Amino acid sequence: MNYAMIIYIVGWLLMVEAGLMAPSAIVGGIYREGAAKAILITMVIAFAVGAFLVLIHKPKVKKIYAREGIVITALIWFLYSMIGAIPFRISGYIPNYADAVFETASGFTTTGASILSNVEVLPHCLLFWRSFTHWVGGMGILVFVMAILPLAGGSNMYMMKAESPGPSIKKIVPKVRQTAGIQYRIYIFITLVELVILIALRMPVFDAFCITFGTAGTGGFAVLNSGCASYTIPQQVVITVFMILFGTNFSAYFLIVRRKFREVFRMSEVITYYCIIAAAILMITLNIRGMYPELGLALKDAAFQVGSIITTTGYSTTDFDLWPSFSKTVLVLLMFCGACAGSTGGGIKVSRIQVMIKTITKELDSVVHPNSVRKIKTDGKQVEHSVIRSINVFIMAYLFLYALSMLIISFDNFDFETNFTAVAATINNIGPGLGGVGPTQNFGKYSTFSTCVLIFDMIAGRLEIIPVLALFSIHTWKEGEFTGGPLFRFLHRKDSGDYS
Amino acid sequence: MNYAMIIYIVGWLLMVEAGLMAPSAIVGGIYREGAAKAILITMVIAFAVGAFLVLIHKPKVKKIYAREGIVITALIWFLYSMIGAIPFRISGYIPNYADAVFETASGFTTTGASILSNVEVLPHCLLFWRSFTHWVGGMGILVFVMAILPLAGGSNMYMMKAESPGPSIKKIVPKVRQTAGIQYRIYIFITLVELVILIALRMPVFDAFCITFGTAGTGGFAVLNSGCASYTIPQQVVITVFMILFGTNFSAYFLIVRRKFREVFRMSEVITYYCIIAAAILMITLNIRGMYPELGLALKDAAFQVGSIITTTGYSTTDFDLWPSFSKTVLVLLMFCGACAGSTGGGIKVSRIQVMIKTITKELDSVVHPNSVRKIKTDGKQVEHSVIRSINVFIMAYLFLYALSMLIISFDNFDFETNFTAVAATINNIGPGLGGVGPTQNFGKYSTFSTCVLIFDMIAGRLEIIPVLALFSIHTWKEGEFTGGPLFRFLHRKDSGDYS
Repeated sequence: MNYAMIIYIVGWLLMVEAGLMAPSAIVGGIYREGAAKAILITMVIAFAVGAFLVLIHKPKVKKIYAREGIVITALIWFLYSMIGAIPFRISGYIPNYADAVFETASGFTTTGASILSNVEVLPHCLLFWRSFTHWVGGMGILVFVMAILPLAGGSNMYMMKAESPGPSIKKIVPKVRQTAGIQYRIYIFITLVELVILIALRMPVFDAFCITFGTAGTGGFAVLNSGCASYTIPQQVVITVFMILFGTNFSAYFLIVRRKFREVFRMSEVITYYCIIAAAILMITLNIRGMYPELGLALKDAAFQVGSIITTTGYSTTDFDLWPSFSKTVLVLLMFCGACAGSTGGGIKVSRIQVMIKTITKELDSVVHPNSVRKIKTDGKQVEHSVIRSINVFIMAYLFLYALSMLIISFDNFDFETNFTAVAATINNIGPGLGGVGPTQNFGKYSTFSTCVLIFDMIAGRLEIIPVLALFSIHTWKEGEFTGGPLFRFLHRKDSGDYS
Repeated sequence: MNYAMIIYIVGWLLMVEAGLMAPSAIVGGIYREGAAKAILITMVIAFAVGAFLVLIHKPKVKKIYAREGIVITALIWFLYSMIGAIPFRISGYIPNYADAVFETASGFTTTGASILSNVEVLPHCLLFWRSFTHWVGGMGILVFVMAILPLAGGSNMYMMKAESPGPSIKKIVPKVRQTAGIQYRIYIFITLVELVILIALRMPVFDAFCITFGTAGTGGFAVLNSGCASYTIPQQVVITVFMILFGTNFSAYFLIVRRKFREVFRMSEVITYYCIIAAAILMITLNIRGMYPELGLALKDAAFQVGSIITTTGYSTTDFDLWPSFSKTVLVLLMFCGACAGSTGGGIKVSRIQVMIKTITKELDSVVHPNSVRKIKTDGKQVEHSVIRSINVFIMAYLFLYALSMLIISFDNFDFETNFTAVAATINNIGPGLGGVGPTQNFGKYSTFSTCVLIFDMIAGRLEIIPVLALFSIHTWKEGEFTGGPLFRFLHRKDSGDYS
């Protein structure tokens, strides 16, 4: 394990986080808010610690492998959340540090679950920081950094793999850095389009920024206690459309830019994603139409909530916890389905569901025709065995983490629906659940211990579980013989050439 | 597809069902109950239809393959439930035929979920039939028949495979019929031991018979409205022990008979099963001890409920719906875990869970050490790739069936906990759930349509999903070119040699 390189990269990343806080500090300056001081102090801490780690020990061997990439990725998501939480804590707006970490992890992982019952008391600079973490986390922290800084040679793929949503990462162009660059340009472009449209529709500029960040990252932090309910209907429709756009596989946009329109219509994941959305909107609209004076309003609310849940954004324009059981069940199933791979959305992902269904069909065939051999295909190409295996493992790990989390948080003695959807909403990076964590409720009711479990679930969900489990697995830290763990090894190293 | 042979075997099986009703008719005679007439009428119908099917057309080709085996198995479980329901309907004790089928399917699949709010009004003969279906269904309808009648040549394995719980069927001895015979002898022996002990402990003889049938098949139909709460503590302890014994892999008993005690202690599934039970009892006892005057009573109730739920029996001695969230969550997780493969219990099965965990560990290893190759082993033997694949497919199909069932029954607008545990309790063949289907409640509240969905779930759960899905899959009925389905083919056949 190349510890020196891990420390070196983590150091750089902490300095980057200090830089990422600058816009929020500027917002604090514009509004002349005292909380800006809390952000500035945190920036200084993050920068100082980062610089110390970078300077303490220049790594001699720059090469890193899968193991190091996974450790860095998992580690940095926890560290970013813990440092990003400091402004909330020292400004006093979130007195409990665990709650502050929850709020920040919820931001970076684009979950959007909040422990706050009243967000409107927060100063603009903290609201901005909260929403900005969505935008940063949406595309991936490391993907961003790696697109700019050439820190490690050639093996960025491992980190990008760990951070990118979906079963398999398709490089649009051969080089990892170029792929990340293209994705980021698409991301920035669509973000700007939404921002401009919302401002043109007369949404307050500050709200437009925060809401756009939340939509782009499929996060879901709002700046009003009413969520998105008090925005005008055209504004809500625009948010609906952009939530769904940000849940679409970004490869589709790349193909559009290249004018390969035909290939877009051959992307079965994207087609399926839009079909699921249409079907869900139709079913819910029919189910809730009696609760609305006009069919159009029911359609608007159904579309907003479906777009918000399937993309795992988590905005709401209505308290869907009051909807009939059928509509609520549709939303719960969408929570698990999630958006497309290669988008900013969370959940299991449409492409995984597709492969799962194909696996079942194939098995049914081979049960009744034991001698037949069939291969699973997606978009005409055969799905590699390793992809199918990793999907199976993902589902297994997902179920176990789900069960264990349910068990632990049930100590707080909330009802089944609340606990079940609290885990669903965090592990799938959605935000609100049902019952005690419904759209008008918050996660502040959980004990500190349960809060920590849900923080873990959010980060595990964002990184698709395996990297986070690997961070805590003995296999990762063991090399040849057991050497007493990383800290032991770090403290007992004999010479600096011992790392590679 | 050998339709002639399917019809021939189904005919025989219907005559067997008529025979299986005889003991209940005798009970009706002893108690001089009018409902016995309903049973006799059904016996005549079943026998007449069965004899007609057998005589109508003697099959020329006796050979059947996987396809035929699966179709017969899935079909017969639906037919047995539909015919076994007739006495409840024509005696008038269950006026709605769908409800009567639910009750019978719940019996044969050893679920034990009931639509009755008051079982004590039922005459003895119907209560006996209800409980007797548990005993018949526990070991498998076809396994039983195949052990007696040599209907088809050599390919019984397919049917036994479809009917036996667990990921892979281990033949204890080389011949299928012998294996079935040995299992049935073990089954009958343990059943008799329990019956004798319960009678010795002064349980009323009728109750002792019914409760023993329910324990042996891990069913759960009781004869009193209070479930098992009004039996004495020693009687409850005996039921607890036998529930757990019937959830143990029967291969363990075979090894004990052969005095291979060492090998029993090497069966990791059995060891894990008892460890899970011990851990769950401990956790729940600590969690509920404040609700009881004595620790012993809390332990007794915890043990009874844990044994009842993990073996998917479904008896209860207390309303565990009133327990704290943590204990309820433990029970819900046990619902999914289920008992050992090769037992009469349902659920996902301990051995499948074990392979799932090993798959995750292996993947974690290969993520951080991409070039390492490891194989999954159970009891020292390498697990075949086909077994792992079938477990994965089972889990996928299970999740989809679960989601779809939840969605459909949510139309009845009951709360999330009720719907979630109603599907859990039927698909895992347990019986009671939580909330609206808790131990003091019943399934009578669901609409006829939802009842049909839950009937499907019970049978799908009992046959471990794939055979039932295969019955409804076009792949099963298609051969070479599509010929318009089985009915079409049957009606349009030109000569009798056309079947093979």
